[in-house]
Amino acid sequence: MAKVLTFREENYSAWYNELVVKADLAENSAVRGCMVIKPYGYAIWEKMQRVLDDMFKETGHQNAYFPLLIPKSFLSREADHVEGFAKECAVVTHYRLKNADDGRGVVVDPEAKLEEELIIRPTSETIIWNTYKNWIQSYRDLPVLCNQWANVMRWEMRTRLFLRTAEFLWQEGHTAHATKEEAEYETKQMIDIYAKFAEEWMAMPVIQGVKSESERFAGALDTYSIEALMQDGKALQSGTSHFLGQNFAKAFDVKFTNKEGKEDYVWATSWGVSTRLMGALIMAHSDDHGLVLPPKLAPIQVVIVPIFRNNEQLSAISEKINPILDELKTKGISVKFDDSDTKKPGWKFAEYELKGIPIRLAMGGRDLENGTIEVARRDTLTKETVPFDGLVDYIENLLEEIQSAIFRNAKKYRDDHITEVDDYEEFKELLETKGGFLSAHWDGTVETEQKIKEETKATIRCIPLDNKQEEGKCILTGKPSKQRVLFAKAY
Amino acid sequence: MAKVLTFREENYSAWYNELVVKADLAENSAVRGCMVIKPYGYAIWEKMQRVLDDMFKETGHQNAYFPLLIPKSFLSREADHVEGFAKECAVVTHYRLKNADDGRGVVVDPEAKLEEELIIRPTSETIIWNTYKNWIQSYRDLPVLCNQWANVMRWEMRTRLFLRTAEFLWQEGHTAHATKEEAEYETKQMIDIYAKFAEEWMAMPVIQGVKSESERFAGALDTYSIEALMQDGKALQSGTSHFLGQNFAKAFDVKFTNKEGKEDYVWATSWGVSTRLMGALIMAHSDDHGLVLPPKLAPIQVVIVPIFRNNEQLSAISEKINPILDELKTKGISVKFDDSDTKKPGWKFAEYELKGIPIRLAMGGRDLENGTIEVARRDTLTKETVPFDGLVDYIENLLEEIQSAIFRNAKKYRDDHITEVDDYEEFKELLETKGGFLSAHWDGTVETEQKIKEETKATIRCIPLDNKQEEGKCILTGKPSKQRVLFAKAY
Repeated sequence: MAKVLTFREENYSAWYNELVVKADLAENSAVRGCMVIKPYGYAIWEKMQRVLDDMFKETGHQNAYFPLLIPKSFLSREADHVEGFAKECAVVTHYRLKNADDGRGVVVDPEAKLEEELIIRPTSETIIWNTYKNWIQSYRDLPVLCNQWANVMRWEMRTRLFLRTAEFLWQEGHTAHATKEEAEYETKQMIDIYAKFAEEWMAMPVIQGVKSESERFAGALDTYSIEALMQDGKALQSGTSHFLGQNFAKAFDVKFTNKEGKEDYVWATSWGVSTRLMGALIMAHSDDHGLVLPPKLAPIQVVIVPIFRNNEQLSAISEKINPILDELKTKGISVKFDDSDTKKPGWKFAEYELKGIPIRLAMGGRDLENGTIEVARRDTLTKETVPFDGLVDYIENLLEEIQSAIFRNAKKYRDDHITEVDDYEEFKELLETKGGFLSAHWDGTVETEQKIKEETKATIRCIPLDNKQEEGKCILTGKPSKQRVLFAKAY
Repeated sequence: MAKVLTFREENYSAWYNELVVKADLAENSAVRGCMVIKPYGYAIWEKMQRVLDDMFKETGHQNAYFPLLIPKSFLSREADHVEGFAKECAVVTHYRLKNADDGRGVVVDPEAKLEEELIIRPTSETIIWNTYKNWIQSYRDLPVLCNQWANVMRWEMRTRLFLRTAEFLWQEGHTAHATKEEAEYETKQMIDIYAKFAEEWMAMPVIQGVKSESERFAGALDTYSIEALMQDGKALQSGTSHFLGQNFAKAFDVKFTNKEGKEDYVWATSWGVSTRLMGALIMAHSDDHGLVLPPKLAPIQVVIVPIFRNNEQLSAISEKINPILDELKTKGISVKFDDSDTKKPGWKFAEYELKGIPIRLAMGGRDLENGTIEVARRDTLTKETVPFDGLVDYIENLLEEIQSAIFRNAKKYRDDHITEVDDYEEFKELLETKGGFLSAHWDGTVETEQKIKEETKATIRCIPLDNKQEEGKCILTGKPSKQRVLFAKAY
């Protein structure tokens, strides 16, 4: 095959960077660390948004919109939160004015320093809880179940398209509850929704679990995450849901009167997924030929390429294909008929492989005679010639089969890369050779976690939910442990 | 009636401000000039987005995403553009870093001044044309038809919820074309789409026209707009579409090789509508009781309030209503059955009037006996008792009738408020008494327009498309004129 991309085996990181750009998903912009999401990449993100948004609404959430800018002082109201976020922000210090009067005829300086500096939101807990203060007085006002689709900004020195960018797009849910139990239920419900989305739509198996203390969200009592495994053996945290306790309610003085007439602080959660999911989707399935997209998230699910020598032949093929296009569209299958004559079929084949279109159909003169059509699967790179009759049903089934196959493959890879290990030397060696998740005992201390991270670059990705309880000894210190946790190198 | 809001007659501006807050549409935030769009308001905006987005896609446009931050120098590349926008920006001057090393072990200042200041986008022509430079080499790369849904920021001293806020949400289309004709066609096509959306969905009649030179977008050769009339006789510009010529292509050096193999600059358009449409929608139809929403954009189209004294009665009503709920949902009609017992029916009636739910149904004991139900229309505030049989068809028809009636009313008001006037004293008097659009002759000079604005606060809203050509004399200077233009005071 002609080499389209650096091979994964040669340099996984270069393969990823090239793929994102060559498949027209995103590119770097003139502003350091900020990306341009190109139409093809954005179309995938839109599909993700639509599905997630429907899932949020089915579980009673509503969308709202809160300000981009946050007074700097808000950040420091919650002690852990400021620690986590105050140091990676873009700061707005000045504004300029067109009409330099304040409406009462007082002329002000047209370029002026703000009285209080504003930061571009890195996450919106603070501005939202400052707003909730006015929305919530009684248990009758609860729960508040808001979600926001927005851009956020976290200043980063080292950025990578989708995976780590200064500006990124995400959704952030922020809910307020009358009881601890209800907030805990919400936290788990949302990580469940993320897991369902990852597995059923992205065809990406994930492990749900709880974060260790040092990996928790800044201001949370508990952070749940879904962890996926990429093809280079590194884990990628793909979504998080936080139980915030009463921390933000206390920081912003949000109290309510409960059913018994007593005042209490409101219980909170927040949860989010971002355009980072695009990076996960790309890395989970794609190969050296380009993108491999699960049919459910592919902007174009089927492409049809006519092979013709002249207009007469094209007409004959089009006549056969047109009813198929209509039928596919009626079934909600997105299809593109590429009859352009400025590009050769071979060029088109390579292009659609690069772009990850799940099914490619090709029809030429011989197919016309024989009543057949060639069907190529992007995931397996296999081709077969099938009868034209019954084609629509065939395609519909094949799309489902591809969706399942991609998931099965990713799951097999993931399952093959969860290794139980009890010896620290083996642990270190496995990280360098096989990678993946290492299931090992840990003594539960921050110090041990920190030391392992320093020595191996592996972190505790999560303590899986419904984890098996077993006696063991910490892989580093030999101290007693009651369960294994999952370590991995991570994005 | 109990007074819910300041009456429009008393103080139109206070009425609007109160309505936006009391109907749970939006509120001011802790950050000057930035609003919180509350779930109910955002649900209307989402409906608008969905419809517009579909219209854009049907006409071949794709969504993409470009950076929030723009290097300050970009703005000044296009001479008119910098004049229009450089003076109402939020400026990012500093950033802070969490990991204060640059990846090669060099420790940098954790709070640092940016080498080049960045502004938060007030509009994205500059960053987008800087990107298009890399996307476009040949006529084969054209047209580029991108749209972006985004937040933008224009620093304002005097803000009003939805109508004028420092941060607002919008869509901005940015297209690139091989020929002038194609770009001009696109400009007009998009203003047509906006007009169709305003009239068919918002039930708000608009006049399409071209802006005079001084009201043009900064950097455009021609600006088209749709102009609507509010109930206080002031005009509201509701959407604009700009023919940008080759200005931005020249500023960012975007050239292409045309079919004849010659190099030329690319032709551009841009077009946008914003959350300002929410303000237009609210003001166009609402009354002293609250919001009036056209059914096509109402998040809840039908609300059903059971009138019951005990659980037995509620059960009997629910049994009758449940199949209706299913049938309505199947037809895509959004319905809410409010059987809560913490609020009285009278309270609910007032609340749903305030929120502008188009149809309210009420069913009590007597209705159960008689096989009837009470139907209340929000737009006319009329009620009637109708047979329960055939209710779903009745509602479906009524929703259409309400949509038409709201449009007819707004159109009648608008048409009654377009006045031809040939005398400047009368012109001034009409502006103070009747308001609305004044159709008057104008000598075509910026000076005259400016003088009229200073003396009367009226501006030229537009020169209507397909304007009747007639000889006349400028209303201010008496100089010859070939057509009337529309003046009005405006938001």
